[in-house]
Amino acid sequence: MYRSHDCGQLRISDVNKNVTLSGWVQRVRNLGGMTFVDLRDRYGITQLVFNMETNSELCEKARKLGREFVIQAIGTVTERTSKNKDLPTGDIEITVSQLNILNKSEIPPFTIEDNTDGGEDLLMKYRYLDIRRRPIISGLLMRHKMSLEVRKYLDAQGFMEVETPMLINSSPEGARDYVVPSRLHHGEFYALPQSPQQYKQLLMVAGVDKYYQLVKCFRDEDLRADRQPEFTQIDCEMSFVEQEDILQIFEGLAKHLFKEVKGIDMNYQFPRMVWQDAMEQYGSDKPDIRFGMKIHDVSAETKGHGFKVFDDAEYVCAIAVEGCANYSRKQTDELTEWVKRPQVGAKGLVFIKYNEDGTVKSSVDKFYTPEQLTEIAKKAGAGTGDLVLILCGKKMPILNAMGTLRIEMGNRLGLRDKNIFAPLWVIDFPLFEWDDETQRFYAMHHPFTSPKKEDIALLDTDPGKVRANAYDLVINGTEVGGGSIRIHDSQLQVKMFNLLGFTQERAQSNFGCLINAFKYGAPPHGGLAFGLDRWVAIMYGCDSIKDVIAFPKNNAARDVMMGAPSLISPEQLEELSLEITPEK
Amino acid sequence: MYRSHDCGQLRISDVNKNVTLSGWVQRVRNLGGMTFVDLRDRYGITQLVFNMETNSELCEKARKLGREFVIQAIGTVTERTSKNKDLPTGDIEITVSQLNILNKSEIPPFTIEDNTDGGEDLLMKYRYLDIRRRPIISGLLMRHKMSLEVRKYLDAQGFMEVETPMLINSSPEGARDYVVPSRLHHGEFYALPQSPQQYKQLLMVAGVDKYYQLVKCFRDEDLRADRQPEFTQIDCEMSFVEQEDILQIFEGLAKHLFKEVKGIDMNYQFPRMVWQDAMEQYGSDKPDIRFGMKIHDVSAETKGHGFKVFDDAEYVCAIAVEGCANYSRKQTDELTEWVKRPQVGAKGLVFIKYNEDGTVKSSVDKFYTPEQLTEIAKKAGAGTGDLVLILCGKKMPILNAMGTLRIEMGNRLGLRDKNIFAPLWVIDFPLFEWDDETQRFYAMHHPFTSPKKEDIALLDTDPGKVRANAYDLVINGTEVGGGSIRIHDSQLQVKMFNLLGFTQERAQSNFGCLINAFKYGAPPHGGLAFGLDRWVAIMYGCDSIKDVIAFPKNNAARDVMMGAPSLISPEQLEELSLEITPEK
Repeated sequence: MYRSHDCGQLRISDVNKNVTLSGWVQRVRNLGGMTFVDLRDRYGITQLVFNMETNSELCEKARKLGREFVIQAIGTVTERTSKNKDLPTGDIEITVSQLNILNKSEIPPFTIEDNTDGGEDLLMKYRYLDIRRRPIISGLLMRHKMSLEVRKYLDAQGFMEVETPMLINSSPEGARDYVVPSRLHHGEFYALPQSPQQYKQLLMVAGVDKYYQLVKCFRDEDLRADRQPEFTQIDCEMSFVEQEDILQIFEGLAKHLFKEVKGIDMNYQFPRMVWQDAMEQYGSDKPDIRFGMKIHDVSAETKGHGFKVFDDAEYVCAIAVEGCANYSRKQTDELTEWVKRPQVGAKGLVFIKYNEDGTVKSSVDKFYTPEQLTEIAKKAGAGTGDLVLILCGKKMPILNAMGTLRIEMGNRLGLRDKNIFAPLWVIDFPLFEWDDETQRFYAMHHPFTSPKKEDIALLDTDPGKVRANAYDLVINGTEVGGGSIRIHDSQLQVKMFNLLGFTQERAQSNFGCLINAFKYGAPPHGGLAFGLDRWVAIMYGCDSIKDVIAFPKNNAARDVMMGAPSLISPEQLEELSLEITPEK
Repeated sequence: MYRSHDCGQLRISDVNKNVTLSGWVQRVRNLGGMTFVDLRDRYGITQLVFNMETNSELCEKARKLGREFVIQAIGTVTERTSKNKDLPTGDIEITVSQLNILNKSEIPPFTIEDNTDGGEDLLMKYRYLDIRRRPIISGLLMRHKMSLEVRKYLDAQGFMEVETPMLINSSPEGARDYVVPSRLHHGEFYALPQSPQQYKQLLMVAGVDKYYQLVKCFRDEDLRADRQPEFTQIDCEMSFVEQEDILQIFEGLAKHLFKEVKGIDMNYQFPRMVWQDAMEQYGSDKPDIRFGMKIHDVSAETKGHGFKVFDDAEYVCAIAVEGCANYSRKQTDELTEWVKRPQVGAKGLVFIKYNEDGTVKSSVDKFYTPEQLTEIAKKAGAGTGDLVLILCGKKMPILNAMGTLRIEMGNRLGLRDKNIFAPLWVIDFPLFEWDDETQRFYAMHHPFTSPKKEDIALLDTDPGKVRANAYDLVINGTEVGGGSIRIHDSQLQVKMFNLLGFTQERAQSNFGCLINAFKYGAPPHGGLAFGLDRWVAIMYGCDSIKDVIAFPKNNAARDVMMGAPSLISPEQLEELSLEITPEK
């Protein structure tokens, strides 16, 4: 038996017990005649004490312990003279009578402490040591807890978890697939799923009624920050439901998770916002509603006063930044540069300082009277002391830019507290997105998304106006998931494919199995999928999903710890009937 | 709202309630003035009733319903005059006042009944319809329940589920990997995991302490019956444990599952059998102990009597088949042919009929006296009325053949009841297997398996005799899982690699990350993995794991429903820098 207790377990009530602990040496401190060893495991830290006077041999042995040695200590639980209130075990220590070194350790490449001295590359390469650090293992523990609570909740609601295959077939729609060459079938490939979308809809045809799965999905993308080639989804689908049923069930899931994982009671209905309002008021389809600073259309107030930039613009909008009227020229200049960055994409920034004394000062004073500026400021929601920021341009792009600026100002003003959680349903997404380049509509979600009943007539007359039975759950400005009611009527499905420019052949080749399945009694159904990595990261309050993935890939899709991807043998290639073409 | 209740929910206590049900039309029966429709969903079947006299229009509509139409029925719960005791809802029916057809169905390619008329190919192609059948969806439900109970049990024991990556690097050890070409890294490949073995050991180095995961694994094998290219494992690992700790925890898991899933209390310690006994007494490392019919060594009793076949054989062994002394010549001839099949591999079969009257009759009467035959029969465990079957040859192959014959006789005699569950730990596996062909030792499990402490000295003198701290859980003659205590001492690990003929380079290239990790304080650890598909199949009492996989591949590793694998586009190939070589 390696241990009778773990390193987070012993309390004052255990004093005088004989115990055996095992773990890692966090630190050795020699204080004159006494030597203290902090023994660490997943559960906590317990102090071991060795006394030079009573057992010099053992104390000498303890003094030679290196950081991260794996040891076993047998001894008696003793009350500490100087207690450590920061540790759950801080009232006691172990007076050790026997010490066994189970394994030695070389000096680790970085310190295994909450705040380590290791850089990201080193931490990734030695991820198995990084995980020993409390901030990392705690995140993984929260992930475990969340996953289990998702399952418990959905099980209680009658959902069944069904595992769908990982080796599926490649679909040219959407993002790029990872593919897997088949050895048995010459020249053919499996693909790894980007999502189990078709399978989960088939499960509804199959009568599974309520399906969920925590499932790995894959996307071979050119890498953006904080994307992983493999990621985990909470994938769900239900039959005989309308949008409201789905929102209720999954709002319940979110509340369950906040309660069980964070101890937060959310005894209120999550706010709902139609997509159009989200775009116009927050410049985003995933508004962070922890703070106000709503966007206001100031086109009417700003146009027609001779300021050509505004007069020529399709749309002029503004936000009021509370208490920032006193921004210096340097600060407003810096903000102007900031909005011109390609990631924001505005051409420039106009500001109005609505001073505490009621006066106004702007960068466009020569075009507007103080009264006009005050009117604009008030329209933007400003009071005295506030700074009004104005952008103009084409409506959607400039709303997006303003949304980005709003988030930036929220960050700068400390309005985005990680310990506050503001969930929101965004609903009534447009069914289609128009693409200027290819001059056609694309499905905003996927081609099986159902239009709202009342908008079906618009499919023939004004498809761009058709709203979908689609919804996203947004928390703190991050989309944690979304979904839709699906089309189960084959006539409507054919119409959708037509609008999306699918020939019958292409529809068959990409979705043939599902289209065929729908002939045999498809129930009305709908569902959604949540990004588990992202949701855990939000709950845990960390910035990167990498922090809550045990073994993440780096931004070049490499596992630097294991060295994947890597070369394979010529024999493997030959068996797969593959040849690598020269690098371009 | 599509429904107020599901189709398995209503009881006699619900009579007079107004309800709304949705589901599939299982069957329409016209009985004179009445029409009955069986409405089916995942939860059950409810009878709808339509009366020509009271509502002829609605009744006509019901009569036109086709099989598998999706309908919604609104009506009143009524007590049936002739109750159906086979259905939980059999006391009631719904007197329908409103009928909505939600979706039509073409005539399905096979009947959606417990016993269908569809052949396997058709069922696979239309798996989404096959799943509608009770025997299939019930198996998937049991799988869901088992998975959840696994998680609940392990969570309660302090295990945390950690997701390990799917895109890892290829290892030339073991079976063939499925590989995934990397687009970003020219000529390099990921591999899909055959198991998360290295990752889970790294998690122990990382201090995760107790890990589990229900995880998809992949093996690109030439196909044997009832193997799937992707399969699910319950993968577990623990730190600071010895073999006994692991057996206790996972025997607990097995008992928990039998209790929760099957309602079976196993209030006893699972028997344990050392590998040597399993081989000698059952001719198998996975004995089915639902029945006796143990194998006995009858070498001493059979040799030296002039029967050259036995005299020249290394090993002669026998089983006693109860009550079969009356087998006809035709039956014994057929058995003789059966053991000669290549799958069994015996050269011939000798039998002794130990008749009810105490006389003996054998196929080798001219070499043995009746007394000698009786002695052999008794040594084989036979009583009067039993048939003794004797095989001879090289020890291990002939024990295997006898094990196969024993199982066959168990099947023929009905001794393998699917409703009886006989778990067994097989322990003390040999650490190495000798391979005659390559004249070297191979690791029976994997190169990290720890030898038994008391056998370590034998590593230098007689490696073939070294026993491993390895164990398998066997249920009803099927290995449902196994594992081992791992080596955490790097000196011992080096010795293992040497014995297995690994150069330092090869060890580094295949296991470099793990070997390196072990330098930084690896705790003593061990674990195991269960095959979920197989375990569910045993619990569910079905013969093939395909029955408990939602979307299985066929024996040629094809998803015939979706059509995977398939060709990919020339553009995809080009992006991956791949060319397909001509078929050989």
